[in-house]
Amino acid sequence: MKLTILGSSASTPKINNYTTSQLLKIKNHFILIDCGEGIQMQLRKLKVNFNKISHVFISHLHGDHYFGLIGLISTFRLLGRVSDLNIYAPEGLQEIINLQLKLSCSWLNYKIYFHALTGKNQKMIFKNRDFNVKTIPLNHRIYTNGFLFEEKFYERNLIKSKIKEYKLNIDDIKKIKDGCDITLENGKKLKNSFFLKNPKESKRYAFCSDTAYYPDIVELISSVNCLYHESTFLDSHCDLAKKTKHSTAAEAAKIARAANVEKLILGHFSNRYKNLEKFLDEAKIHFKNVELAIEGTEFDI
Amino acid sequence: MKLTILGSSASTPKINNYTTSQLLKIKNHFILIDCGEGIQMQLRKLKVNFNKISHVFISHLHGDHYFGLIGLISTFRLLGRVSDLNIYAPEGLQEIINLQLKLSCSWLNYKIYFHALTGKNQKMIFKNRDFNVKTIPLNHRIYTNGFLFEEKFYERNLIKSKIKEYKLNIDDIKKIKDGCDITLENGKKLKNSFFLKNPKESKRYAFCSDTAYYPDIVELISSVNCLYHESTFLDSHCDLAKKTKHSTAAEAAKIARAANVEKLILGHFSNRYKNLEKFLDEAKIHFKNVELAIEGTEFDI
Repeated sequence: MKLTILGSSASTPKINNYTTSQLLKIKNHFILIDCGEGIQMQLRKLKVNFNKISHVFISHLHGDHYFGLIGLISTFRLLGRVSDLNIYAPEGLQEIINLQLKLSCSWLNYKIYFHALTGKNQKMIFKNRDFNVKTIPLNHRIYTNGFLFEEKFYERNLIKSKIKEYKLNIDDIKKIKDGCDITLENGKKLKNSFFLKNPKESKRYAFCSDTAYYPDIVELISSVNCLYHESTFLDSHCDLAKKTKHSTAAEAAKIARAANVEKLILGHFSNRYKNLEKFLDEAKIHFKNVELAIEGTEFDI
Repeated sequence: MKLTILGSSASTPKINNYTTSQLLKIKNHFILIDCGEGIQMQLRKLKVNFNKISHVFISHLHGDHYFGLIGLISTFRLLGRVSDLNIYAPEGLQEIINLQLKLSCSWLNYKIYFHALTGKNQKMIFKNRDFNVKTIPLNHRIYTNGFLFEEKFYERNLIKSKIKEYKLNIDDIKKIKDGCDITLENGKKLKNSFFLKNPKESKRYAFCSDTAYYPDIVELISSVNCLYHESTFLDSHCDLAKKTKHSTAAEAAKIARAANVEKLILGHFSNRYKNLEKFLDEAKIHFKNVELAIEGTEFDI
């Protein structure tokens, strides 16, 4: 997996800061997570092939997480997109998009499939042979989900040295690829798995924005390779965090520690802070492996 | 009047190019004309005081002319705006904005007054003591209006040399300011206007985007000081202009010449053109005083 931060400001875009949006590449799938205003300009900067984006996951219907989506959908049309687009979002987004398309008489030359999210418990909302996506119900002022992305690796490659050692022929190799065991010329039987490498580790990425400090999610994101957790505020504004149902850097770090994750990425910074290093300082008291979601940064997961 | 170009790309924003939006300052009034995606970032770059924007005029409901409005409205709220906002736009925009505010549970701390434009003939849609605004019905794929902004100057300042020459006292000066004539000590009567300068010339600005070549507007914009007219295409794509109901640079210039305007500004350039100088070349065959709507440019009208 490769994660690119497109924006991580809270509330409103600024001169050179976009609001929440991330691009996640899983194998050859390009997935957009949230879509703040102007994000199509960020995608152009990063030279992303717009047509490759197949799935969009929207956490909630506060504008700083989706105002860029209608523009992106319109640009897809202008670029001649024909492939389907799947959008997973709270109920209501479909109505917003369709109303705007209707009023502009802009009929799309591709299909959008809206998948309305409504449940309050974790749910598998997407799976194909390469990855699964589950919701992570969060605790915010309006209905909000985080998302858990789970890569899947099935392929077990041949161990070439063993093929050579036992002088297997083409028929034998075909059998191994088909999952069968092998009987050697001397009658010795060898298990199929003896000739195969273990599959590559499947990585897991959890995206959690926006939410109050909410330990209920710890179990749902246990041991993920990477957790993005919002940290709108520093400790000095913990009252404001409670009131607005956001988290502080320290709270995000406590969640990361309790869930025993490998890496924590902090983001959704309030515009009131000029020095983002303080977010790292306050988080590291509770969890060491932490980084900032700076725009344009790529994380290999 | 001072006009600032915030964006002038057609269809879709690019890395450093925003779609149609202009800021017009008439005396102390700040007026936004169209509002493409991300325009609030341009307003920040130009250090515009957001709260000063009192009126928004939206030409039509193609996204490149209004997708930035909901974000701007939300940012107004976050900045603590309390003053009214007046929005003039085709029917439907109010429904779009209200739906998005409802779904995000974002109640505004200021009032928006929506003025739905529906007519097919020119209409005075706003007037106060400082300026009028009239529609300019255009010919596009969906219902579209341009706007004619007319400044008003009433104040006639005293001619100080005459006050001195006739040795007028404070009471006399007060009378003149109140609009009365003056009787001198020798009995000679002098008209009020004898002591006053003519009022400053009232300027007129016409904004016309988007439209096919449409000579019907010539009469409506006759002799304006400045005309902004869309020119999406060059002559080489005149067929495309016809098909999409847009104009070429030459067509915009023909309108400017027929309407006998002082200055023409071209904009709404298709993203296919890298060299915008060609728009000037093709326009100047028909009309000399022409400039390009380059982002960030200010025009004194």
